[in-house]
Amino acid sequence: MLDNYHTDTPVPIVDLDIVARNIARLQTICDTAGVQNMPHFKTHKSLRIAQMQIDAGAVGITCQKLAEAEILAAAGFGNILISYNVLGSAKAARLQQVAEKTALTVACDNPVVAQFLSKSMAGSRAAIMVLVECDTGRERSGVTSPKQAADLASVIAGLPGLKFAGLMTYAPAGDPAPTSNFVAQTRKLCAENGLEINRISAGGTPGMATIGQVGETEYRAGTYVYNDLMMIAAGAATQADCALLVHATLVSNASPDRAIIDAGSKVLTSDTGGLDGFGLLIDYPEARIYALAEEHGFVDLSACLQKPQIGEIVRVLPNHVCPVSNLQSDIGLTQNGHPAGQLKINARGASK
Amino acid sequence: MLDNYHTDTPVPIVDLDIVARNIARLQTICDTAGVQNMPHFKTHKSLRIAQMQIDAGAVGITCQKLAEAEILAAAGFGNILISYNVLGSAKAARLQQVAEKTALTVACDNPVVAQFLSKSMAGSRAAIMVLVECDTGRERSGVTSPKQAADLASVIAGLPGLKFAGLMTYAPAGDPAPTSNFVAQTRKLCAENGLEINRISAGGTPGMATIGQVGETEYRAGTYVYNDLMMIAAGAATQADCALLVHATLVSNASPDRAIIDAGSKVLTSDTGGLDGFGLLIDYPEARIYALAEEHGFVDLSACLQKPQIGEIVRVLPNHVCPVSNLQSDIGLTQNGHPAGQLKINARGASK
Repeated sequence: MLDNYHTDTPVPIVDLDIVARNIARLQTICDTAGVQNMPHFKTHKSLRIAQMQIDAGAVGITCQKLAEAEILAAAGFGNILISYNVLGSAKAARLQQVAEKTALTVACDNPVVAQFLSKSMAGSRAAIMVLVECDTGRERSGVTSPKQAADLASVIAGLPGLKFAGLMTYAPAGDPAPTSNFVAQTRKLCAENGLEINRISAGGTPGMATIGQVGETEYRAGTYVYNDLMMIAAGAATQADCALLVHATLVSNASPDRAIIDAGSKVLTSDTGGLDGFGLLIDYPEARIYALAEEHGFVDLSACLQKPQIGEIVRVLPNHVCPVSNLQSDIGLTQNGHPAGQLKINARGASK
Repeated sequence: MLDNYHTDTPVPIVDLDIVARNIARLQTICDTAGVQNMPHFKTHKSLRIAQMQIDAGAVGITCQKLAEAEILAAAGFGNILISYNVLGSAKAARLQQVAEKTALTVACDNPVVAQFLSKSMAGSRAAIMVLVECDTGRERSGVTSPKQAADLASVIAGLPGLKFAGLMTYAPAGDPAPTSNFVAQTRKLCAENGLEINRISAGGTPGMATIGQVGETEYRAGTYVYNDLMMIAAGAATQADCALLVHATLVSNASPDRAIIDAGSKVLTSDTGGLDGFGLLIDYPEARIYALAEEHGFVDLSACLQKPQIGEIVRVLPNHVCPVSNLQSDIGLTQNGHPAGQLKINARGASK
């Protein structure tokens, strides 16, 4: 690829036209299904893209950590879901501040977190809406039975400063029945305790095609905004839907079949997403990034009919895009095929 | 572990006493061997720790990328080695600026890079010292034969703005003979071309115990400053030599044997370093971090006699520490067992 843009590599570059198309596609799916769109901040961590999502019809923004919610709340986003157990004494005052600035929902899967959330709100007239996180098969966080979910809902409903709001799940791929059944049983048990479930949050880009089928009222998708090789492998995107490419320079070719690019694990990350290799050279699809050192990408060129040359800029589609943008302060933008400035990654590294 | 410090997790915390001991140990080895110490910036990316290394006797600092060298040069470090092929039109003016501020050496394994380095110095009275990078078995960058090394040395010696300075290798573990032979043959061929080899740079923390044995005049070690599970596995460190631990909070324990900590791949990185799991819970060594999501660390507690509780802060020794500090703007410090402020990671993400 010719270096028309005098590109300083390695750098991720995002195509804003593809981003806008991806945002519109999810919004249409949500609107058609009558499900509220709460896209996930974790992928782009950019206030500008979050605003594009709101402008297209999203009702709020989901994030994973309190530090991300602080950035969103400070920027005036009015409806934020932290889809994560927030816990730790250093977070209490921070949590109350966010809850006083914005409509804040937090997910929770255990009474220790529920009590912490409640204590954090002491002295405040605001309240945190709390979703009970349910593990419907992914085996990450989440209560593992409808009974536990209903019991935790009652704990939450009884704590000052909290409002029980409903359920959250990150359902595994495949059969929706375990999730639907979990939700139905929990709804029944909660009703017996006098609690109504008004919100059910589901999520994940691979599940976009079937939004609504587990009875969710809102949806959290993150990766869809950029897409990556994992989403292609999951059947949720094509290469044309992938908005972020890492531009890297081929800096060494000491052995005929081995090239080194200037993007290693500190740019592409070591996250393979369970796929082979560490990204696709889209202009040389027969090439294979077979290893990464911190600043070296090792490329096997043996299968390439035409080989990239030293000094050439190559474009890498990452396996998993979310941790890639988290490594940058600013990434490049293009629009209509032309450079379009920089995108600030406001919540880079905001994991606290 | 009790949260005596009101620690906001997840956060890496560095023990400055261990850092000082590690720095002193490498310096003593180098001094004893009569080898100049050029420690690698890539691990800590901190000007403060780089200064500790200089204060202990290092003659300069090695870094991997031009962006790191810019930060070091701007802070007044007077002797910098970029152990990497620097290439790309956007880097030319930047390179000249660094070379005018500091004594700059750059490694190079091909004539395209040599010509780029030379052109970058057009109009400047400064010069870049250039080391020919030699691949003596690691199969990363580096010319693969003494003939190529000597030919490239002649190219460099003939280019304006450059001074041929010597050779650089990142020798593989094990038998030093291939590296020694490569160096000896290259020295002979260079001498026939009228070129003297004054510097031979070798590197790597695992090779610290045998510094000097391939005839190097200077040594680049990086990871030794913090150490990690990879260095323990390589026999280069013990757990007592490991200075950086990630403090994380146990936030979920929905299944008796599965805990979730609030450090995932965005903090611990997906870099396993070829080891099993994603870090060691040093207070619960029978536990196993078996998977990471972006903000979730999945811990198998089934082998633990005593299990950590929800809300407890656990300390994780990373598999590979270098990409971990690269994810942070600031990390915590302790000294004499007490909190000792923050360490700024000046070159976080400086991969350009």
